Amino acid sequence: MSELSPVSLPVAGVRLACVAAGIRKADRPDVTLIEICEGATAAAVFTRNVFCAAPVTLCRSHLASAMPRLLVINAGNANAGTGEQGFVDARAVCREAAHRLHCATEQVLPFSTGVIGQRLPAEKIIDVLDLALGQLNQDAWDAAARGIMTTDTVPKCFSTQIVTEAATYTVTGISKGAGMIKPDMATMLAFIATDARVSDTHLQALVRDIADRTFNRITIDGDTSTNDSCVLVATGCAPGPALTPDSAQWTAFRNGVERVFAALARAIVRDGEGATKLVSVKVSGGLTEADCLRAAYAVAESPLVKTALFANDPNWGRILAAVGRSGATDLRLHEISIAVGGVPIVAQGEPVPGYDEADVASVMKGAEYEITITIGTSALEVAVLTCDFSYDYVRINAEYRS
Amino acid sequence: MSELSPVSLPVAGVRLACVAAGIRKADRPDVTLIEICEGATAAAVFTRNVFCAAPVTLCRSHLASAMPRLLVINAGNANAGTGEQGFVDARAVCREAAHRLHCATEQVLPFSTGVIGQRLPAEKIIDVLDLALGQLNQDAWDAAARGIMTTDTVPKCFSTQIVTEAATYTVTGISKGAGMIKPDMATMLAFIATDARVSDTHLQALVRDIADRTFNRITIDGDTSTNDSCVLVATGCAPGPALTPDSAQWTAFRNGVERVFAALARAIVRDGEGATKLVSVKVSGGLTEADCLRAAYAVAESPLVKTALFANDPNWGRILAAVGRSGATDLRLHEISIAVGGVPIVAQGEPVPGYDEADVASVMKGAEYEITITIGTSALEVAVLTCDFSYDYVRINAEYRS
Repeated sequence: MSELSPVSLPVAGVRLACVAAGIRKADRPDVTLIEICEGATAAAVFTRNVFCAAPVTLCRSHLASAMPRLLVINAGNANAGTGEQGFVDARAVCREAAHRLHCATEQVLPFSTGVIGQRLPAEKIIDVLDLALGQLNQDAWDAAARGIMTTDTVPKCFSTQIVTEAATYTVTGISKGAGMIKPDMATMLAFIATDARVSDTHLQALVRDIADRTFNRITIDGDTSTNDSCVLVATGCAPGPALTPDSAQWTAFRNGVERVFAALARAIVRDGEGATKLVSVKVSGGLTEADCLRAAYAVAESPLVKTALFANDPNWGRILAAVGRSGATDLRLHEISIAVGGVPIVAQGEPVPGYDEADVASVMKGAEYEITITIGTSALEVAVLTCDFSYDYVRINAEYRS
Repeated sequence: MSELSPVSLPVAGVRLACVAAGIRKADRPDVTLIEICEGATAAAVFTRNVFCAAPVTLCRSHLASAMPRLLVINAGNANAGTGEQGFVDARAVCREAAHRLHCATEQVLPFSTGVIGQRLPAEKIIDVLDLALGQLNQDAWDAAARGIMTTDTVPKCFSTQIVTEAATYTVTGISKGAGMIKPDMATMLAFIATDARVSDTHLQALVRDIADRTFNRITIDGDTSTNDSCVLVATGCAPGPALTPDSAQWTAFRNGVERVFAALARAIVRDGEGATKLVSVKVSGGLTEADCLRAAYAVAESPLVKTALFANDPNWGRILAAVGRSGATDLRLHEISIAVGGVPIVAQGEPVPGYDEADVASVMKGAEYEITITIGTSALEVAVLTCDFSYDYVRINAEYRS
């Protein structure tokens, strides 16, 4: 299996640019363009929040009618909670960009991240379109990763290459994280491109499946944003025929794409607001995968568990209590086992004899470890990535305006 | 309608005592006895956490076979996550107390609150039983309210009297709160007694109904304890016949009991760990009460909303986003209205014209206010009490052991 590349690799058929429009802070790049060649396919998944932002609604509608040629992303303003005006503003940006690129308005997808409830300064975006279009180039992935940041502390960009007999495929992606942003919320954006050729139908199934196993398995604080968007583009510029689930190369290709998604998702949790730890909560043995996920999320989102992670405190009672209230079907205490960093704490519902708290406290001092929980006897297993809950989480989210 | 009494009133038929057994801290009262006269009825509701503590399981079983004569409550150790040994220890306390009181073991109910996962020091409790039984008196409600405290900062005791033509009934109750305790979890205990005579069947319906409207409508951090218990005792010592839902006095009596429950529940949130605000989240208009509650809890438990409350930050986008992810049925943006402290912010899904953020910021500086949310057109309304999320919440829950 090939690994992640140490540098970001260009994807044939994709060009990017990033300029400062003064939306977030003066002189900071905050408008990013991602241009996609003709003939490419694209597929996306969006927030499940019912009150999604205007650009999300517009993206869904545009994607239903045409394949995109341009993604326009602004940081600093989420264009959410902006009522009808939000659609008018997002459409204006798409129309102006389409006019300059000589494509249909529906071929431009708008993305916004930042403060919500404030009108999008569409004019500021439109004013920099010519400048940005003039700077489009294949090597601007790292710049784009910076351009979409809000309260993120590091840019997130990962690449991999999948070498097959038919061709070598490149996958590169960027994401921005659950920095809960200006006064607002986790706004996850991810854009991933490959030069493989994949039909839009197969691409849609792929992005849904992989997002479910990566971006939909992370949590910073359980608050689902109005703007979450994840777009996967396949330019088809690599040699060889289109890939389908029946292709010999499909599994290798699919795993390569998942590798980039997983790295981006992991980077988001690692850079969670105030986070000092990256913890994988693995739950196995539930009646259904949904039951395993209920238990995993109850633990991964419990403020009591998360403050204990921050304190390196082997407070396993909080884990047990969270599983107990999770709503997972048919929980029985005598089937519960809990280990932290491989150290068994509870086995078959009873404290493990000879358990030494110091062993777990020592594991928890690390920056990254696993909590493994068995809730039954099935072979099912899920993992959810979470982070701890620190003073800085409160500071970042409480003191923004002060 | 009669009001809450400024002092705690004795309840005929109930005697209390509180002594130090050295479970929590040296020389701090941590074992509380509540003796109930013969012929009284009692009913209770307990945690819905599947992994409830040993004393909770024992209480359920004892209550099913006999009416209680004695409640034995210890602070400092929750006797949760203690496996089979936990039952052995709790039973030993009940047996020894029953022996001294010349009643059946099933007539003693055990309650524990404190650190979980550590063996209950049953001997320490048994050792102070004689001392405590010798000190039982009617006027020790305030002392008992102190004796059951863990990380609570104030004792919680409320009384009311219901004056009817038939009799004057007294209701007095104590509770301890969602201080998340030693290294552990919200452990809510409440004991309420009245001198009215009520059958155990009617009492059970009453305690369930009122607890659902009071204790089950508060949240500090969404973590349901393994030990939550709420007991209502009716001694029957007041003159007059038994009260039933058909009695002329029932409504007045019921309202009086609810007044005490509501005051105790409110006091728990006000004393929530690190809390600086008491906020009522009112949601109306949902298709069902469950839908209203989903939206209310999503807002009341959102870490982003709660950090904004701490910061007096009119961050209504977080409220809108929480409602949007709540899972309430059939949400439509154009039916959503939001006001904070009576100041309209969003109406029919659009920002209210002329809305001035300063007005809301000023309301939020108060120690207590309402967030009112309309999610549809029905006449249904629910209210959930919550508090803010402060640095002290993290400090109390993260730094306990350091």
